[in-house]
Amino acid sequence: MIVTVTPNTALDVTYTMDGLRPGDVHRVREVRHRAGGKGVNVARVLHTLGADVRAIFTAGGSTGAAVVGDLAAAGIAAGVVPIGGETRRTTTVLAGDGSVTLLNEPGPRLTGDEWQALAAAVRARKPDVLVCSGSLPPGAGGYAGLFGDAPSILDTSGDALLAGLAGKPTVVKPNADELREVTGLRDPVAAAAELRKAGAGAVVVSLGPEGLLAVTGSGTWHAAPSTVLRGNTTGAGDAVVAALALGLSRVEPWPDILRRAVALSGAAVLGPLAGDVDLAHYQAEQGLVAVRARPD
Amino acid sequence: MIVTVTPNTALDVTYTMDGLRPGDVHRVREVRHRAGGKGVNVARVLHTLGADVRAIFTAGGSTGAAVVGDLAAAGIAAGVVPIGGETRRTTTVLAGDGSVTLLNEPGPRLTGDEWQALAAAVRARKPDVLVCSGSLPPGAGGYAGLFGDAPSILDTSGDALLAGLAGKPTVVKPNADELREVTGLRDPVAAAAELRKAGAGAVVVSLGPEGLLAVTGSGTWHAAPSTVLRGNTTGAGDAVVAALALGLSRVEPWPDILRRAVALSGAAVLGPLAGDVDLAHYQAEQGLVAVRARPD
Repeated sequence: MIVTVTPNTALDVTYTMDGLRPGDVHRVREVRHRAGGKGVNVARVLHTLGADVRAIFTAGGSTGAAVVGDLAAAGIAAGVVPIGGETRRTTTVLAGDGSVTLLNEPGPRLTGDEWQALAAAVRARKPDVLVCSGSLPPGAGGYAGLFGDAPSILDTSGDALLAGLAGKPTVVKPNADELREVTGLRDPVAAAAELRKAGAGAVVVSLGPEGLLAVTGSGTWHAAPSTVLRGNTTGAGDAVVAALALGLSRVEPWPDILRRAVALSGAAVLGPLAGDVDLAHYQAEQGLVAVRARPD
Repeated sequence: MIVTVTPNTALDVTYTMDGLRPGDVHRVREVRHRAGGKGVNVARVLHTLGADVRAIFTAGGSTGAAVVGDLAAAGIAAGVVPIGGETRRTTTVLAGDGSVTLLNEPGPRLTGDEWQALAAAVRARKPDVLVCSGSLPPGAGGYAGLFGDAPSILDTSGDALLAGLAGKPTVVKPNADELREVTGLRDPVAAAAELRKAGAGAVVVSLGPEGLLAVTGSGTWHAAPSTVLRGNTTGAGDAVVAALALGLSRVEPWPDILRRAVALSGAAVLGPLAGDVDLAHYQAEQGLVAVRARPD
């Protein structure tokens, strides 16, 4: 079983409005709610692909209850860690002019006991692959303490990423900006090598429309999509992580994993909300992704 | 007992942010929640003044539960009418540049049975004064059907106001824009006379910083504050309605009612959130309001 962990769960809210003008009163035309947070999105993609997956996440208050209810309705197996705080909301405002504006609430502080309950829930599930995704709320312990013997993927940024390397995750997946921020290096291959020295087994860097760079113990590859897609890029990174988790669970070679990860990332760009994927694109694109080995 | 009715309840959410730039990703610095909707705000002001008041309102879903919980915590007597839809949220974004931006979700549709339950809850309370406030959600019956023999105040706009006049409310309280919209007349005295002809006993028009105009069966008055206040004008109209309800319950003369209404409106402008009032200002300002009778 693949287990995803989301310490900083969110209820993703999407507002459709005619426009957004600071200082004005606006009527929201349509309101959509969906369970969110990066690990929850990863679990949703894996569930869509038919994988055996469970999302472990914190949930508190009425917003936490809405997250739990949404995942139950979607049929996604959940491991809920109750917390005293209120789960945060992230609101995406889609305006008539095409602009996309995000308002992200801060996450509630976790108590030490709540973090320990999250860690215990992860251990109890004995995951085949463990995915740790997203930011850490105040009061959270580090991701490093969650990793056991199973293959693991860490998708976070900043201090949470740096501290997590001590747990020797199998793969870390920063994007180019996150990689530059934590290493101070502009060259992604050199920066990835730094993260490997600090504990990461492999580093998969998402390069947006240019695809993925993978720096691993068995080689370095660049995987490029066949075409540049326009759409919703919010969940693209989570789809990459879902494909990496699937590849690790099946012990596939890196070029195959990367081919699928690029295809699934594109399939997410075509999905209307984070966690949605276009299965037809996923299937067709896998044969079109160009994977090239690079000299180390 | 004063009873307020809120068919289109809201959870008022206040976001404090550094700025609001369409197209950007924003971190919300502070999140505050409070039960809202105009009738709920009126009840909160009356409760602060020590009046015997009960707020009757619709509530559904987790947002409805949050509204119920907030009023219970504030000690405000509630008559909850459960509905199948999810209570709406209204979000106020306070940006660092001083701009105030509102995002108002649409209200959930009421069933015929839910509206009847609301009407039955109002009748069962046998109010001494009935206050009907705010917009009507889809599926709602009209306010006219709620008015009985007790004195009543109607504070709404557009079609809901026009249709409500058939119930012969004791007082209607439009602002100048709302009055112009429903009558097509620019002169507020002439426009108020139209509403009286259509069924309103008295018309109290809120004129913003210029105070109140009251056109009644016993005379016409203008009541002006002693000073122009800067602050949060969102709940000022609800404070006026609270003062009108208190005045009707005590059978006070119009000049006294208007003096208190102007003072309480100013006290609400000084309050941080809708429903808050500055009691020191309320007390001091009552003696300073200028009430002048106008020729009919």
